[in-house]
Amino acid sequence: MNRKDSLLYQNARFYEAFERSSIEMMEEIWSGTSAVRCIHPGWSIVEGRHAVLESWQRIFEGEVHMKVTLRNVRADVYGTIGIVVLQEEVLYTTGKLSNTGAVMATNIFEHDGRDWKLIHHHGSPTVVLAEQEGENFRFN
Amino acid sequence: MNRKDSLLYQNARFYEAFERSSIEMMEEIWSGTSAVRCIHPGWSIVEGRHAVLESWQRIFEGEVHMKVTLRNVRADVYGTIGIVVLQEEVLYTTGKLSNTGAVMATNIFEHDGRDWKLIHHHGSPTVVLAEQEGENFRFN
Repeated sequence: MNRKDSLLYQNARFYEAFERSSIEMMEEIWSGTSAVRCIHPGWSIVEGRHAVLESWQRIFEGEVHMKVTLRNVRADVYGTIGIVVLQEEVLYTTGKLSNTGAVMATNIFEHDGRDWKLIHHHGSPTVVLAEQEGENFRFN
Repeated sequence: MNRKDSLLYQNARFYEAFERSSIEMMEEIWSGTSAVRCIHPGWSIVEGRHAVLESWQRIFEGEVHMKVTLRNVRADVYGTIGIVVLQEEVLYTTGKLSNTGAVMATNIFEHDGRDWKLIHHHGSPTVVLAEQEGENFRFN
């Protein structure tokens, strides 16, 4: 797998962790060595591995099942930094109710020589849908 | 000036261009060689130098004067990539009316051997203010 493919693979694993509400997968995906930061939609910044993982734990504790479809995925590799920009289409289900939301995301990964590790996630609510139809990406 | 200081300087120039509604400064700041992308608060993604500059032009055509105060500025350099994460406090003024908004921003710059050039801006509305009081940064 080349660097860009492995970047997309790790990005897909991040959303798999999200769908599965798996804090163990999140622990693997987020960098354990570099400064990490996370901006959840509408939130302020969360900084540091401990606080970032705790924020995901809080999200996972909500009894909401989330299904994410990735649209218009763009990925670029610059040395040891990989940048993925995309649109998340999130289907939230709680009991018999469900709702869809669109989130724009910037995900920044750092390659540690073996794997891409997430160092920054910025998710934000969007009201405007993408005009162009790009590559749709579903990881399972 | 070391790389981190010049990164912060170029980041401040980006906001100066914003405050001055200067498309000429934006043309200087945004990369002319790499793929550029921009997510304005609530918008979908804008891609490519031409479309990105046009989107700023449209914003600047609105008769709104904007003053930006940067808060909790975080900057990291990874080789030729510089990442700046911060909170924008924007004071919008139109005629006698004014309003304040908070925006979380991720700005990614690429060093071209001479200067840092902006390749990605992601701005998103936030409802939660930063809990920690960090370094406040005012560029003029």
